[in-house]
Amino acid sequence: MTEPRLVEVRRNVLKQNDVIARELRQRFRAAGVYTVSLVSSPGSGKTAFLEKTLSLVGSTHRVAALVGDLATENDAARLRRSHAPVQQITTGTVCHLDASMVRGALDAWNLADLDFLFIENVGNLVCPSSYDLGEELRLVLLSVTEGEDKPLKYPTIFHSADVAVITKIDLAAAVEFDWQAALANIQSVRPEMPVLQVSAKTGQGLEEWQRFLEARAGKTPEGRTQPVG
Amino acid sequence: MTEPRLVEVRRNVLKQNDVIARELRQRFRAAGVYTVSLVSSPGSGKTAFLEKTLSLVGSTHRVAALVGDLATENDAARLRRSHAPVQQITTGTVCHLDASMVRGALDAWNLADLDFLFIENVGNLVCPSSYDLGEELRLVLLSVTEGEDKPLKYPTIFHSADVAVITKIDLAAAVEFDWQAALANIQSVRPEMPVLQVSAKTGQGLEEWQRFLEARAGKTPEGRTQPVG
Repeated sequence: MTEPRLVEVRRNVLKQNDVIARELRQRFRAAGVYTVSLVSSPGSGKTAFLEKTLSLVGSTHRVAALVGDLATENDAARLRRSHAPVQQITTGTVCHLDASMVRGALDAWNLADLDFLFIENVGNLVCPSSYDLGEELRLVLLSVTEGEDKPLKYPTIFHSADVAVITKIDLAAAVEFDWQAALANIQSVRPEMPVLQVSAKTGQGLEEWQRFLEARAGKTPEGRTQPVG
Repeated sequence: MTEPRLVEVRRNVLKQNDVIARELRQRFRAAGVYTVSLVSSPGSGKTAFLEKTLSLVGSTHRVAALVGDLATENDAARLRRSHAPVQQITTGTVCHLDASMVRGALDAWNLADLDFLFIENVGNLVCPSSYDLGEELRLVLLSVTEGEDKPLKYPTIFHSADVAVITKIDLAAAVEFDWQAALANIQSVRPEMPVLQVSAKTGQGLEEWQRFLEARAGKTPEGRTQPVG
């Protein structure tokens, strides 16, 4: 179905992306910045989750965010309410961020001034899966309103992620969300994947997320990097 | 950000797609089949809406459906409960259907035996916008749980569609859906676009949708094609 020549060109683009992503990862590590990316469908609540995260984590750490969208600066405007430095990347018709877009956006900042960098991808459960952005942790968000079958229908993005975050859990009863099926589907695609459950609206699960993140990043709530070992 | 060579190859792929889509459109018209495609985010309720549509429209017309997903035959299995002929197209890692996939799937059917063909695209608010499938009518679905800003953030897909369908309206109050903002955003991207409001769960709006569809297709509820003029 897909043109062989398109596949070949795409392979080269991905290879080039991986080189830039590797450089980015080295820069992040050298500067002590823990980088987290967020992928999901449009409307899964990435921006609401990130807004709460910036406020919560930003109260004790130095945080910043990059946010990708085809068009509009709306998400950046929303996220700036947290007072964190935020930059919007508009991709035009491109259905994902790539490492060069992230690198370009970083020019404005001194990485040594940051503890955490969050990168919100374009809303898409397909395209972002192949593009390494140099992040340490990739979250795939899934809202209860989208149904329990998404991991089975979009396995590649779940494979590429490190953690699943089930969002809008305040609506779980209203949509008769089947927790058992959802968790079984996630585990069948990606065994042992950690699953967090949150509601940006009620705040449920956000403290667990904060603790999880700080533990993964090896940073204490006081904002200092914990000695390893 | 995107490789110039990738853009060029993609342009040729799109040109090739348009040729096949044009042939398909001619075949559909010659056979008297009115073809409707559905695009949306993953989890907007395309399959639930289509399941109800197949039962409702299928009670007086000969209907069939093609359904696209990266993986699984789940949606085809769900849609077959309506007793309509259904075929699943699995795209692997490709984030949209294209005209050649549709043409390939049609080999199994005699188009003269159909009044309506529905094509459910892969859940994606970006990639499907550039691919003509030979359809007469393209619906873009948007669930109330996704938020009112999606037309502004994914303008290309709204540009490419003929009708917006707001789904899961039974949840509008629970998510404090702002109807005025949503309708204003749709109109700002695509002035004069018809907007339907439905709930596959409660059935609200489905009869209006059926009447709208039959009027557009020029087919009476009795299943006969209405004389024009």
